[in-house]
Amino acid sequence: MQPDLHSRTAAAHALPLFRRRSPLVHCMTNDVVQTFTANVLLALGASPAMVIDAQEAAQFAAIADALLINVGTLTEARAQAMRAAVISASAAQKPWTLDPVAVGALTLRSRFCHELLTLRPAAIRGNASEILALAGASAGGRGVDTTDTAAAALPAAQDLGRSFSTIVVVTGEVDYITDGQRTLAVSGGNALMTRVVGTGCALSAVVAASGALSGDRLSNVASACAWFKQAGSQAAGHSGGPGSFIPAFLDALWTLEGEVQA
Amino acid sequence: MQPDLHSRTAAAHALPLFRRRSPLVHCMTNDVVQTFTANVLLALGASPAMVIDAQEAAQFAAIADALLINVGTLTEARAQAMRAAVISASAAQKPWTLDPVAVGALTLRSRFCHELLTLRPAAIRGNASEILALAGASAGGRGVDTTDTAAAALPAAQDLGRSFSTIVVVTGEVDYITDGQRTLAVSGGNALMTRVVGTGCALSAVVAASGALSGDRLSNVASACAWFKQAGSQAAGHSGGPGSFIPAFLDALWTLEGEVQA
Amino acid sequence: MQPDLHSRTAAAHALPLFRRRSPLVHCMTNDVVQTFTANVLLALGASPAMVIDAQEAAQFAAIADALLINVGTLTEARAQAMRAAVISASAAQKPWTLDPVAVGALTLRSRFCHELLTLRPAAIRGNASEILALAGASAGGRGVDTTDTAAAALPAAQDLGRSFSTIVVVTGEVDYITDGQRTLAVSGGNALMTRVVGTGCALSAVVAASGALSGDRLSNVASACAWFKQAGSQAAGHSGGPGSFIPAFLDALWTLEGEVQA
Repeated sequence: MQPDLHSRTAAAHALPLFRRRSPLVHCMTNDVVQTFTANVLLALGASPAMVIDAQEAAQFAAIADALLINVGTLTEARAQAMRAAVISASAAQKPWTLDPVAVGALTLRSRFCHELLTLRPAAIRGNASEILALAGASAGGRGVDTTDTAAAALPAAQDLGRSFSTIVVVTGEVDYITDGQRTLAVSGGNALMTRVVGTGCALSAVVAASGALSGDRLSNVASACAWFKQAGSQAAGHSGGPGSFIPAFLDALWTLEGEVQA
Repeated sequence: MQPDLHSRTAAAHALPLFRRRSPLVHCMTNDVVQTFTANVLLALGASPAMVIDAQEAAQFAAIADALLINVGTLTEARAQAMRAAVISASAAQKPWTLDPVAVGALTLRSRFCHELLTLRPAAIRGNASEILALAGASAGGRGVDTTDTAAAALPAAQDLGRSFSTIVVVTGEVDYITDGQRTLAVSGGNALMTRVVGTGCALSAVVAASGALSGDRLSNVASACAWFKQAGSQAAGHSGGPGSFIPAFLDALWTLEGEVQA
Repeated sequence: MQPDLHSRTAAAHALPLFRRRSPLVHCMTNDVVQTFTANVLLALGASPAMVIDAQEAAQFAAIADALLINVGTLTEARAQAMRAAVISASAAQKPWTLDPVAVGALTLRSRFCHELLTLRPAAIRGNASEILALAGASAGGRGVDTTDTAAAALPAAQDLGRSFSTIVVVTGEVDYITDGQRTLAVSGGNALMTRVVGTGCALSAVVAASGALSGDRLSNVASACAWFKQAGSQAAGHSGGPGSFIPAFLDALWTLEGEVQA
């Protein structure tokens, strides 16, 4: 089951559809990446909203087009609110996406992520260590950084995709997007993306948003990955370091061309 | 009751007074905009401080020059701390400002905002949908984005201003600032301001800060709106997208000229 | 006990050691500075992770190389989680650093900081007002801004260092780093650093990280201060205000030369 390279044409084709759809994304994410996540969604033409109280989150998850659950700064209270939002989103048939930050090494989030798996996320986005840990194939990295390559986690990702009928995205130098049947690969990007906090978390928000598009979801999610790789590569060319990379990356997402490319 | 255009002279005149006063602003705001709000206040010469524990918030609200309450990521615990701060600020005769983010659609914040109204804010800043919802004239937008124009919300804003003896700011392509008797209008700005998270929330913090100035409060609040429009317009001229807009906007606030302009 | 000027050679020598060590820093910090703190650590080659649930924080403090406790947006629940993390870090012999934001004026954090002192931080970083208040020499400033000069707080810092066998950093136009026996001074920097939120808090995170280096801890902590002064000075030379200062500062940390300088 070799991965297929996701075509740039498909990614460029999906972008104007995304902008036109302008998904309203309910983000329940960690404290560190909230601003960047919101700005990434805005730069791509989506509409972010962070609603966190359990009762309000349940209300809002039914209104929004998509929901993101990121466990980076989980607490018991937040887990309860996230659970309420997931149940509400599912009832309203809105897709939701899981970012299992640092799953494996820490007990609360590990239990919670495994519980969430059974509630059927539309997509999961993590680095190799996180996907391996979620699939039960390892104990996770030391923290938020991955100690494995994305390719090494691909079999685990495919297993997860099949077992839970979901799309699994493993990001790294090459991103893999799989539902266990088909696997797409996206290359590109730049190492500076790992020297800025929140690029992975923000991608998860865009993956969540892309769940609201019609058409082939696997391809749409791969397109989200491709936009990030392309913008990251462009931004790095205009950056003197991770500081100037951040505004350049948002500008690149904003100006990314959606026309069909050869 | 036609609005009067707020003069650029008045806005330019108020700026050095603001910088000299350097208000210490107690911000109880949402998770997404904390950093940007603090940096906006610093760029204008004010002094931001975020204190959130109920007991500490009550202590600090009496020390600070002004208080901001923004319900964007409200929880029950935060509502309790905000209530304590508002009561303390009122007792110490410090002005406080309400930003009723996404009021209308969500129960907890809607109830809380209506409760807060009775505690007499010095000012309220929202977009058209929020002001309409707060005035009971509509059920609010789908989230943080407005679905109405500021002009459409002006009668509701004027009603609110009269009913609660407060200043209401409705922001949009044109900002309206009203106490129900007088109405000022501020135009300018740039659409990029809506593609960056937190510009409205940060303006609310500056509105709160301007409550600490002596003189005509309606005019001072309108001046705060004018500084934002002017800085936004300048920054957009130096930006390649929303990413580079953010630092350019802070720089523009920092370098904004306070001299009298024709 | 006159301070010695910390040599640029020592600071330049410590930088590649820091980058090679790449400390994993567990940051329990305030809501306002999380993103900037993470990006500063990443720009210097360290690895930040924010874990905040009490149980998870205790787990993670034993895994990470260093722990930062910053009380800027303290709540009772956060104090409990921080306590658990400190106890765990101490048991695992991992160094932890205290940033006593706005200690003195506010009750909860003042009590908590005094309790934490008895749990033996490896280092404490604050402005003059905070260090004076922590040492019991004053009631603290009005908020996060200092109303005293660093030199005025040096005797209090030296007392604290001796009493609690810790390293105390008082930052200001000149930074002083003392354990009560030796005192190092670092000058440089730029006033723009005080017009951006989080530079002090982010320095505390780097001070925490530097506790994980081998060698002379006092010198390593002074080197962290020197990197900030140098990057701040470089960035200010390329900035049009506090907005453009932020990316320029991160870029400067990223490109800072670690070679021995005369």
